[in-house]
Amino acid sequence: MTERLSPEDLERRLRQIGDERYHNLHPFHKLLHGGKMDFGQVQAWALNRYVYQSAIPRKDAALIARLEDRELRREWIHRIHDHDGIGDDDGGIERWLRLTDGLGLERNYVISRAGALPATNFAVEAYVRFVYERSPLEAIASSLTELFAPAIHAERIAGMLENYDFIDDQLVAYFRRRLDQAPRDVTFALAYVLEHARTIEQQQAVLGALTFKTNVLWAQLDALYHAYVAPAMIPPGAFRPEGR
Amino acid sequence: MTERLSPEDLERRLRQIGDERYHNLHPFHKLLHGGKMDFGQVQAWALNRYVYQSAIPRKDAALIARLEDRELRREWIHRIHDHDGIGDDDGGIERWLRLTDGLGLERNYVISRAGALPATNFAVEAYVRFVYERSPLEAIASSLTELFAPAIHAERIAGMLENYDFIDDQLVAYFRRRLDQAPRDVTFALAYVLEHARTIEQQQAVLGALTFKTNVLWAQLDALYHAYVAPAMIPPGAFRPEGR
Repeated sequence: MTERLSPEDLERRLRQIGDERYHNLHPFHKLLHGGKMDFGQVQAWALNRYVYQSAIPRKDAALIARLEDRELRREWIHRIHDHDGIGDDDGGIERWLRLTDGLGLERNYVISRAGALPATNFAVEAYVRFVYERSPLEAIASSLTELFAPAIHAERIAGMLENYDFIDDQLVAYFRRRLDQAPRDVTFALAYVLEHARTIEQQQAVLGALTFKTNVLWAQLDALYHAYVAPAMIPPGAFRPEGR
Repeated sequence: MTERLSPEDLERRLRQIGDERYHNLHPFHKLLHGGKMDFGQVQAWALNRYVYQSAIPRKDAALIARLEDRELRREWIHRIHDHDGIGDDDGGIERWLRLTDGLGLERNYVISRAGALPATNFAVEAYVRFVYERSPLEAIASSLTELFAPAIHAERIAGMLENYDFIDDQLVAYFRRRLDQAPRDVTFALAYVLEHARTIEQQQAVLGALTFKTNVLWAQLDALYHAYVAPAMIPPGAFRPEGR
């Protein structure tokens, strides 16, 4: 990329990153949604993904801590409420814990992250740090994986309900809610990025930020795949499904 | 301090820091509330204090970005709303801008911070960084200057209304609202600190954090005093009242 892109071309490049790198392409994802996982593997996925879910409000707060524009802070803060809840709404993390409850995982064990894979923690913390250390524009661009999320959530809900008798409608409440939330959020974030990434350097930076974020997601599925699918080498101290 | 304090003694030590170091003791504060300032000096104060006010939501977001306890995040986040506003509530920063509006300062100039004293910016950014870099316990302890705020706010409202014909009730709306907000916030923060500062090292750390915060506030009044009161040496580029 040697020339400044039009907003349309920039959007096309951003979407192309999703086509090539989003974690719906990962073998773990296909196995999970295709009903090819056993109970312990689904547990391991939910347990590790909790680490990511529970860090999202910290990531969004890290961005808000960088924003000097009050209007932008006011716009962004509902994302924290979406995950942490506010008032009577328990929020997305609680919905995720209902999934791990339903999968028979001890809540304190899940919240402690004691059984999560080290690579999961590293990837997630790299994301929080990225948002705090890079420019707000890059931080906002890194949220654009939500462009690709609704398709994966819809696929996940259908695939998991159909293929696993231990998954019921209540357990996929997190994903159902995200079907509404993610498109609203990403419409704002995409418009922001297209408007503010004006120079070629900024455009390269936002493309890099989205690529980074796809890596954060991909690395988490890599870690799960290598530990729980094949060759199933679970690192010391990490969650061990019964009988392994 | 060589021995672990009881919660009662720790609270006494915290309050003692206020008695000795809170910025109500600063000569600038006394002059301001006592009606001894001219219009330009009050403008300079409001302009510089905006830098502090407008950084508070970033400071609180920096803390939330560090909190792994969802309940604590849910409790803390209303502070961001108090300042940034949410929905129909314009928030405290907007109320502060009504004060600077009323003092005849251009809004964009205030928001740009271009005329603020460098020392103001340094002190305020040191506070935001402190919260992000130190332990959450220290960050929460640094908010305890609110223990001493209601008295100063009440004094400020009465003193400024009485002494300056250019200050009316609308312009002190920020302080009136803080009379309700600060005690609610500090009750939670004080209880948190007394409960979680258990070792002598933690107790020293929280006393240090509150001392640090009193320095952040004091340094801002120092800067104002040295630039606008005596010997009135306004640094290059900083706001210059008419006729100076």
